[in-house]
Amino acid sequence: MAKSPECEHPQKASGWAARDTSGHLSPFPFSRREVGADDVAVKILFCGVCHSDLHTAKNEWGFTTYPVVPGHEIVGVVTKTGDNVKKFKVGDKVGVGVIVDSCKKCDICEQDLENYCPRTVFTYNSPGFDGTRTYGGYSDFVVVHERFVLRFPENLPLDAGAPLLCAGITVYSPMKYYGMTEAGKHLGVAGLGGLGHIAVKIGKAFGLKVTVISTSQKKEDEAINKLGADAFLVSSDPGKVKAAMNSMDFIIDTISAVHSLVPLLGLLKMNGKLITVGLPNKPLELPIFSLVAARKLVGGSDIGGMKETQEMLDFCGKHNITAEIELIKMDQINTAMERLAKSDVKYRFVIDVANSFSE
Amino acid sequence: MAKSPECEHPQKASGWAARDTSGHLSPFPFSRREVGADDVAVKILFCGVCHSDLHTAKNEWGFTTYPVVPGHEIVGVVTKTGDNVKKFKVGDKVGVGVIVDSCKKCDICEQDLENYCPRTVFTYNSPGFDGTRTYGGYSDFVVVHERFVLRFPENLPLDAGAPLLCAGITVYSPMKYYGMTEAGKHLGVAGLGGLGHIAVKIGKAFGLKVTVISTSQKKEDEAINKLGADAFLVSSDPGKVKAAMNSMDFIIDTISAVHSLVPLLGLLKMNGKLITVGLPNKPLELPIFSLVAARKLVGGSDIGGMKETQEMLDFCGKHNITAEIELIKMDQINTAMERLAKSDVKYRFVIDVANSFSE
Repeated sequence: MAKSPECEHPQKASGWAARDTSGHLSPFPFSRREVGADDVAVKILFCGVCHSDLHTAKNEWGFTTYPVVPGHEIVGVVTKTGDNVKKFKVGDKVGVGVIVDSCKKCDICEQDLENYCPRTVFTYNSPGFDGTRTYGGYSDFVVVHERFVLRFPENLPLDAGAPLLCAGITVYSPMKYYGMTEAGKHLGVAGLGGLGHIAVKIGKAFGLKVTVISTSQKKEDEAINKLGADAFLVSSDPGKVKAAMNSMDFIIDTISAVHSLVPLLGLLKMNGKLITVGLPNKPLELPIFSLVAARKLVGGSDIGGMKETQEMLDFCGKHNITAEIELIKMDQINTAMERLAKSDVKYRFVIDVANSFSE
Repeated sequence: MAKSPECEHPQKASGWAARDTSGHLSPFPFSRREVGADDVAVKILFCGVCHSDLHTAKNEWGFTTYPVVPGHEIVGVVTKTGDNVKKFKVGDKVGVGVIVDSCKKCDICEQDLENYCPRTVFTYNSPGFDGTRTYGGYSDFVVVHERFVLRFPENLPLDAGAPLLCAGITVYSPMKYYGMTEAGKHLGVAGLGGLGHIAVKIGKAFGLKVTVISTSQKKEDEAINKLGADAFLVSSDPGKVKAAMNSMDFIIDTISAVHSLVPLLGLLKMNGKLITVGLPNKPLELPIFSLVAARKLVGGSDIGGMKETQEMLDFCGKHNITAEIELIKMDQINTAMERLAKSDVKYRFVIDVANSFSE
């Protein structure tokens, strides 16, 4: 018989879990594996609250196994290392993102694209190779194979840096892969939430002209004056949208609700690229004429491999890029989730984990 | 008042036109402009029958102006050249494809992508810069700016080569742009009609492994033994489709009917590219998870620029690539259109134009 989450591993751990589709989170005693030869134990200091955490807590994508401990924007400090670990030592500041394991042997892993390995193990709600479930960063510590642990830049604040581990790499990786790094090119960022606001900052760091595309006029001032966007386009204003047609080289579409791609494709120039990183739970309508007539494309992208995630962290360190956050304690998570569902956050909740669990 | 098509230009011409949404074609006397300094007059020998001709004759895309003379897969012989013309002389074998003019000055034209110029003039059903309508290749001759005239390879048969002018470049251009030319990579060709059968031949010439994806099992023998495909996948067989999942690097989707992209995307490997060149008249459903989870993309492509069209013709000359055709006379066109609507043609009708009009 399977052991209970509290007994299946030797190390006692504390987390907060959702037990059913209400998504309500509450304290959850469980356990972590012993630190293996290639493993690093990380005391969790901060954990960002990603929209995926909410989708998964409520089983909105349909593949949640309860109880689930969300959290994959983890920043912490190394407390123990296995005998083979060379990259880290006790006391190092590190990050853990969306994945904690992969086969490490296939062609895809050998290209440093562990995120696309068919055997990727996600940081939570995933079966690990030992047969037990993974539990995420809404917890006091985590044990991870060193390949999936990132060095956190010395100069960045740990709390505001935590969202880089998912939101940061989610927008950075497609910018690299789809060639959005040429200074002077025009990037549209559709949706100004956790992903979008970091896309603006990274886009500016690459020297792009950045236009925020949003349904909400009231975000204009902050988009430009606080986040550094060059322009702001209210998607509900047909006149302004028409004036901006054929003006953008790329769009990163961070919108996770079902929405029309037609106006976004119209904003692109010839050869323009629309990259979706949000995950609407229904198919979107794709107008083929729009793609064909000006050789446009719609592409996807899903976080990034470990090498590229480290590159992204180093890039953000160099350019002083972090998220705009609201810091909360663990016991405020249910209210935070309610607010997140209404997009009522600027722009990412981060849990002060270390001060939420007693030693 | 506007002059009639028969009187607006000085040169008398004969064609076949559709007058209404029945799409029925019948003899149509009209006129062509005098040969200008940069123009080439081409006596039309052969003209392919493209699915676009049928869509336009019946106004299925909604932007036909009647009367319309279809035809944009034109092969013929130069009969007169303007004073500035340097590329061609009387007697040269030439081709004319989907476009006959563009602004010739914009950034896009300067990149030799006249096909994406916002002021492209199509070979038929298009307003020309002189204010008159363009009439296509179902006619005895045409007058075209030399930039939009192609040198036809000496070694290719004129009749079977005609479809290269649209079908050929439509599949060649995305193969070049989206990087499908690396020998050994695996190309899926969805739909085995006029476009698809040429995609198979060009794919093989690039050294690709080519799998035809078709609803019709009865095309298997010909796909492999006549066209040279390596494999054949019946899209209606779920077991075979499942076995072929994650096996293809690219798919060229030539299907012009509304269809599901889900199985096609599933056939692609990580980083796979699905390129649509057919033009369904309604949007298709785009499953975002499928794009994101393995960084796939759906892209469009629309014929090619003049430089690339010449490159394609030369490539086809070198590799002896032509279409499989059924040669018809002009007065058989209505029956041919009925058969084309039912996909009852292997694989392209070509009109023997020179022998259909009296001198």
